[in-house]
Amino acid sequence: MSGYFSTIKPVSYDPDAAGLAFRHYNPDEIVLGKRMEEHLRFAVAYWHSFGWEGGDPFGGRTFERPWFPGDTMELAEARADAAFDFFRILGVPYFCFHDHDVRPEGASLIESRERLERIADVFEAKMAAGGPKLLWGTANLFSNRRYMSGAATNPDPDVFAYSAATVRGVLEVTHRLGGENYVLWGGREGYETLLNTDMGQELEHMGRFLSLVVEHKHKIGFKGTILIEPKPQEPTKHQYDYDAATVYGFLRRFGLENEVKVNIEQGHAILAGHSFEHELALAGALGILGSIDMNRNDYQSGWDTDQFPNNVPETALAYYEVLKAGGFTSGGTNFDAKVRRQSLDAEDLVAAHVGAMDVCARGLKAAAKMLEDGGLEAARRERYAGWQRPEAQAMLGKGATLASIADDAEARGLDPQPVSGRQEILENLVNRYV
Amino acid sequence: MSGYFSTIKPVSYDPDAAGLAFRHYNPDEIVLGKRMEEHLRFAVAYWHSFGWEGGDPFGGRTFERPWFPGDTMELAEARADAAFDFFRILGVPYFCFHDHDVRPEGASLIESRERLERIADVFEAKMAAGGPKLLWGTANLFSNRRYMSGAATNPDPDVFAYSAATVRGVLEVTHRLGGENYVLWGGREGYETLLNTDMGQELEHMGRFLSLVVEHKHKIGFKGTILIEPKPQEPTKHQYDYDAATVYGFLRRFGLENEVKVNIEQGHAILAGHSFEHELALAGALGILGSIDMNRNDYQSGWDTDQFPNNVPETALAYYEVLKAGGFTSGGTNFDAKVRRQSLDAEDLVAAHVGAMDVCARGLKAAAKMLEDGGLEAARRERYAGWQRPEAQAMLGKGATLASIADDAEARGLDPQPVSGRQEILENLVNRYV
Amino acid sequence: MSGYFSTIKPVSYDPDAAGLAFRHYNPDEIVLGKRMEEHLRFAVAYWHSFGWEGGDPFGGRTFERPWFPGDTMELAEARADAAFDFFRILGVPYFCFHDHDVRPEGASLIESRERLERIADVFEAKMAAGGPKLLWGTANLFSNRRYMSGAATNPDPDVFAYSAATVRGVLEVTHRLGGENYVLWGGREGYETLLNTDMGQELEHMGRFLSLVVEHKHKIGFKGTILIEPKPQEPTKHQYDYDAATVYGFLRRFGLENEVKVNIEQGHAILAGHSFEHELALAGALGILGSIDMNRNDYQSGWDTDQFPNNVPETALAYYEVLKAGGFTSGGTNFDAKVRRQSLDAEDLVAAHVGAMDVCARGLKAAAKMLEDGGLEAARRERYAGWQRPEAQAMLGKGATLASIADDAEARGLDPQPVSGRQEILENLVNRYV
Amino acid sequence: MSGYFSTIKPVSYDPDAAGLAFRHYNPDEIVLGKRMEEHLRFAVAYWHSFGWEGGDPFGGRTFERPWFPGDTMELAEARADAAFDFFRILGVPYFCFHDHDVRPEGASLIESRERLERIADVFEAKMAAGGPKLLWGTANLFSNRRYMSGAATNPDPDVFAYSAATVRGVLEVTHRLGGENYVLWGGREGYETLLNTDMGQELEHMGRFLSLVVEHKHKIGFKGTILIEPKPQEPTKHQYDYDAATVYGFLRRFGLENEVKVNIEQGHAILAGHSFEHELALAGALGILGSIDMNRNDYQSGWDTDQFPNNVPETALAYYEVLKAGGFTSGGTNFDAKVRRQSLDAEDLVAAHVGAMDVCARGLKAAAKMLEDGGLEAARRERYAGWQRPEAQAMLGKGATLASIADDAEARGLDPQPVSGRQEILENLVNRYV
Repeated sequence: MSGYFSTIKPVSYDPDAAGLAFRHYNPDEIVLGKRMEEHLRFAVAYWHSFGWEGGDPFGGRTFERPWFPGDTMELAEARADAAFDFFRILGVPYFCFHDHDVRPEGASLIESRERLERIADVFEAKMAAGGPKLLWGTANLFSNRRYMSGAATNPDPDVFAYSAATVRGVLEVTHRLGGENYVLWGGREGYETLLNTDMGQELEHMGRFLSLVVEHKHKIGFKGTILIEPKPQEPTKHQYDYDAATVYGFLRRFGLENEVKVNIEQGHAILAGHSFEHELALAGALGILGSIDMNRNDYQSGWDTDQFPNNVPETALAYYEVLKAGGFTSGGTNFDAKVRRQSLDAEDLVAAHVGAMDVCARGLKAAAKMLEDGGLEAARRERYAGWQRPEAQAMLGKGATLASIADDAEARGLDPQPVSGRQEILENLVNRYV
Repeated sequence: MSGYFSTIKPVSYDPDAAGLAFRHYNPDEIVLGKRMEEHLRFAVAYWHSFGWEGGDPFGGRTFERPWFPGDTMELAEARADAAFDFFRILGVPYFCFHDHDVRPEGASLIESRERLERIADVFEAKMAAGGPKLLWGTANLFSNRRYMSGAATNPDPDVFAYSAATVRGVLEVTHRLGGENYVLWGGREGYETLLNTDMGQELEHMGRFLSLVVEHKHKIGFKGTILIEPKPQEPTKHQYDYDAATVYGFLRRFGLENEVKVNIEQGHAILAGHSFEHELALAGALGILGSIDMNRNDYQSGWDTDQFPNNVPETALAYYEVLKAGGFTSGGTNFDAKVRRQSLDAEDLVAAHVGAMDVCARGLKAAAKMLEDGGLEAARRERYAGWQRPEAQAMLGKGATLASIADDAEARGLDPQPVSGRQEILENLVNRYV
Repeated sequence: MSGYFSTIKPVSYDPDAAGLAFRHYNPDEIVLGKRMEEHLRFAVAYWHSFGWEGGDPFGGRTFERPWFPGDTMELAEARADAAFDFFRILGVPYFCFHDHDVRPEGASLIESRERLERIADVFEAKMAAGGPKLLWGTANLFSNRRYMSGAATNPDPDVFAYSAATVRGVLEVTHRLGGENYVLWGGREGYETLLNTDMGQELEHMGRFLSLVVEHKHKIGFKGTILIEPKPQEPTKHQYDYDAATVYGFLRRFGLENEVKVNIEQGHAILAGHSFEHELALAGALGILGSIDMNRNDYQSGWDTDQFPNNVPETALAYYEVLKAGGFTSGGTNFDAKVRRQSLDAEDLVAAHVGAMDVCARGLKAAAKMLEDGGLEAARRERYAGWQRPEAQAMLGKGATLASIADDAEARGLDPQPVSGRQEILENLVNRYV
Repeated sequence: MSGYFSTIKPVSYDPDAAGLAFRHYNPDEIVLGKRMEEHLRFAVAYWHSFGWEGGDPFGGRTFERPWFPGDTMELAEARADAAFDFFRILGVPYFCFHDHDVRPEGASLIESRERLERIADVFEAKMAAGGPKLLWGTANLFSNRRYMSGAATNPDPDVFAYSAATVRGVLEVTHRLGGENYVLWGGREGYETLLNTDMGQELEHMGRFLSLVVEHKHKIGFKGTILIEPKPQEPTKHQYDYDAATVYGFLRRFGLENEVKVNIEQGHAILAGHSFEHELALAGALGILGSIDMNRNDYQSGWDTDQFPNNVPETALAYYEVLKAGGFTSGGTNFDAKVRRQSLDAEDLVAAHVGAMDVCARGLKAAAKMLEDGGLEAARRERYAGWQRPEAQAMLGKGATLASIADDAEARGLDPQPVSGRQEILENLVNRYV
């Protein structure tokens, strides 16, 4: 027990509580025939909540956590104690980690891996003792200065090799801990200036790297899903995994579209100029929706703000797309979010997660009701009903040609009249649920 | 002869002219072993220069052109007279058109097509009489209210059919006029709200439509290139052809990546959050760079401003990518740009093109010198030189696995040290040429 | 009676209705001691709902309204019939208009004014017969091509004079109709390029113009408030009334800060890089909050989307600022919003307003509860409590100098420790009300 | 001598040099009757070039400078040695500093001030020995965690006092060193969330603070200019000194518009949605243009990228506005720019400045030629010529009223016709000089 959260009691569902409680997240409540916990599959992100110190580009650490003052294995264990206390307080079923936030890097690749294994022992014991499961692990291939020009896409092949060794280690630890996914975020896979960049070559290397990881996953028998997390920019001027569509094209190019899925982050979607639900719907349509990083980006700040979600109408639309795509299988809802650097206290960290879990629960329940009610889907079906007609289907089938369709259209003297899209009426309908 | 430009003489190359002249664009000047004209392959866009009336969302027509007051075939011919006078004044080798800006739509598909054919007769005669060639034609599938919810992606299959008939007609006219490309811009292929949209189905229809067009192209023997023009949004909230990477994934999905290329517009690149040179370099790397729509978007206006290019350092970087990708084959430099709505006079229209052609010529010449000098490419090669080593190549080849690479990295005790990316030095180098 | 809305019955408050009804807007419900209607003071915008035809930069009219096909006084009256039917259906207490959307412009200034007077007669009769009151009138000084380079800031003094005559006419009609405010939106007061612009001179002219209007208001005894509506850009590259802070500086410069207030539009706030509540809070702090144009801008579309509001958490924060500033006096909630161009039907127009009114009512009620509950304000007071200490107040008062404060700080060995800002806890608190 | 730059020789003007040299910046060249050095008044920013370690939000230090490993007075002196070597290599006439980057903070306010005084001794000696002069000094009131919620606007009055003491110390050191200006950048004067912020009170405190500083300046006889540096956001969600117009309104409100000017940064202008030249022209028109922070922000990265300027057409437009406003008096051109974090070498730091100085010199020379040529100004005068007519002037003068102007306009039957704004022709004209 770390003591850091000792004054905070486990949070439970109590809609009428005066103090800290879940007012909407009730893990056992049945939604669309499944427990809410199994729908949402919440995970806490180790790095933001236990690694981030409150710095920003104009100032350093603001948080005073007992595990910050040094970079030793002892403090790493103290951090793990605090983290698992925190998981217990929230009652979340999952957590996620980067190698970099769970232990200090060693002096060599081997020492780094061994340290990771030692922390994994600690985690394993805590998980066995009732701790949460591992939603996913990942290797941080961007913080150390060796990665300043990329990992798999580094002009220096030694960095490619170093990255391969690192991912091997973290993937295997993720496997050992029963991780349900493994995530690759290409933090510095991209460029600062085209003037010194061979984009064609870098993309080839990135494809090669991903293929190696997929191969290795199968070799070691890891059954989890490999996930790529799109982001358009920051830290680099341009990141290769710009958005879901870009990742899809990349996977297609390297024949990996059935092997790899995407982990969609709200904030990254926003930075790419998309709504969160767009990215979810598109990934769903392309069959590559894997998991979500739930947070929110300030729409008017052009950097990754990683705030906790707090807008129910928006989370409702997001979960609506998740549910329409069949819900999560190996994926879940990871809070890739950090409290503001002015939110100094342990209580802030807990309350931020509790509030966010409630916001997600409200979103999920609203989405489920919209689906059950069926009004939205009925309107959508009606809008496309014409395509059910045999002559419409024929245009999509073999035998039809541009000329045959055109001849027919001319012969029929087609003059199609527009029909209302009813956007405001549908928006009103959504507002009855949120 | 239209008379509209009667006071303006043909513009010629004269670096020391006091008045209107090309100061940099010299069609016959040899650049990298080829005439400048053949490098740049300039085209005037019929719609902006002869169709656009100067309106914006807060005000209507400001231009008073003799061919505007009505929508008759006679005025369409007057417009063609003016346009070809204009082409002659500039001495451009190409023009581009939409069906919509060259003739009034008819009361039926058949009448619309017949009118297009009649205007094509006019064009054909003028082209034969020394007018420019056709860089590309395209069908406007977005202005008429029938397309308000999309063309190929419309929920109404009749609009799909109507669009097919329209494209068939314009593709065939483009073929007849010797067009070197045919462009598809999905102006309303996208959505306003996901609430009423079935994105999966719409993408399927869009893929089907494109396949039909490609098939027809081959059937009629059209040798030009089919081009898609990416744009992220506007008029729709989200357009399906978001950017080059998105189009690439789409082409891959429908097996069309060897059939279709992209027409990259500067302004659309900017709206998608990319630099123009990024889109060009990426399309080049993916083998789908076809042609460019040269203009500039105000970086701080979130709509399509379609201004004439005027920043030489930027055009130099753009043509550098074009040259590195091998230069244009069927593509060219189309000015998809319009004079500001306050630029009322015939002289403004001419000067805008002349200035833009000079800016492009300066960009091209700077790019060519940078290539000839070789400093940039030498620096780039040096940066990636490590990848030429056999052990580096081995990581990319058969036989290597994540484990073999990782084992080797650990065994060698790899600790790669970063090397300067020298961005500012390279930027300074570029500034010696622009 | 226009017949256009003949199938739609007046909308009433019925929280359990199956069909079209107000589920939250109950005009007579008492909120913070006042009827909800008197808090919200809803107005319908004549131009969007009865003037806008559904065009966008890539396509023309989509709406088929019986009053569109021509530009005659008869059709203007038909439009008025429809508009007042619509006001009655919604039961709104106010409407707003531009001269331009209520009658066709005449061949001369005098004819234009006379036509406006004639339509004002029509309005007057309808208002007397139970129609809504006039929240504000305004002159459209941007659509006609004469204004292409500005109105008060036009390089041509005749346009300044023309604009003065126009505003005089509309201000007097607004006065006659009992308008409670008069709005100036500087649609083209700004510039396209600094190259042809004398910003200093234009700002002087703008200040002069506003002073003339204020003077005239007093002369004719108009008791309403003169309002400026900030917008950062569009249609111009840069608009002079960028945001509330800019307008404040402008008013100060011309000594008009006690004469003129601002009409804050959500969408314009967003385009300026601000949240709506920021602009409201700032205007409140500066004492210039007048009225609001309620709509919403797509956060990711860089043009003015003018959508109906649909996000309750956001409207709650907006009304919270309005209530904190004391609520509306002469101002109100004008829906400067338009249905999407695909929303073709009369029913869409009605439903859009009904949904928006409900969203505002929910926002107002949540804001009122937050104020009554007092938790937010208590937390805020506590955060600043230190400033109540006498030694803190002394720093703000006469006698304190930088040196005296600095000497004292050094002497006391000050080392202030940060205190949590509790952002997430406050966000959670807000979420208990929305 | 620090040794860090020992391999790099002083850079001199040599247009034909093969290696590192000024190709355009020739300090003694006469431009518009004044030496180029006196026009540009270049300054190096101590913090970016000697304080910044190459970190970004996703990674830490990349630079290995001999003065980084600790935070001692000895290393601070080593840093000063390197900095003054660097100034000598470049031959710049000025430098700028924050207290925070020149010495480690002490354990108390008094110790911090004493350390600053000791470093000032070091500077003084080096300046006397031929080092550059001080363009401006400033206090860093944002990095330390005590400032996380603001300095003058902190909810804790002790932070206000602490800030006052700090500014007193740095202002006095700036005065002692002959600084020509003193800058205030309100790095955290703004807010993260309105929920915990009393904007009205914070603005009052900020006004009070500035008044205290101005008073103190006069008391100690500091003849330099007090400058505020606008920035719209980052690090805070919203900064109070948003842009030049906002600062102007703030100064007016507190009666300081004749006491304080602005230091305009290109990157901050961009983040506020303005062009650099807009901010310069506006500040010029309002009489508050003081100095510039020259850098460039990536137009498509929504955070402060602080890159070295490299686009000559843009710097030409900036210096055109500076020259039109009369040129710098106490202000100058400070490079608030940092090399990219991948630009590791001493040579990168030197080359970045050399390239930037050349870009500025080219910009200045082009701007001067445009002014000498006079074409732009002649076109501008012509555009506004109508305002020279007596009847136009009369509208601006006493006696004219809205009614008199309107009556006259109606009587004359005014129907003003628009005249071309000639934007493209003017843009072409500019391109003849850049």
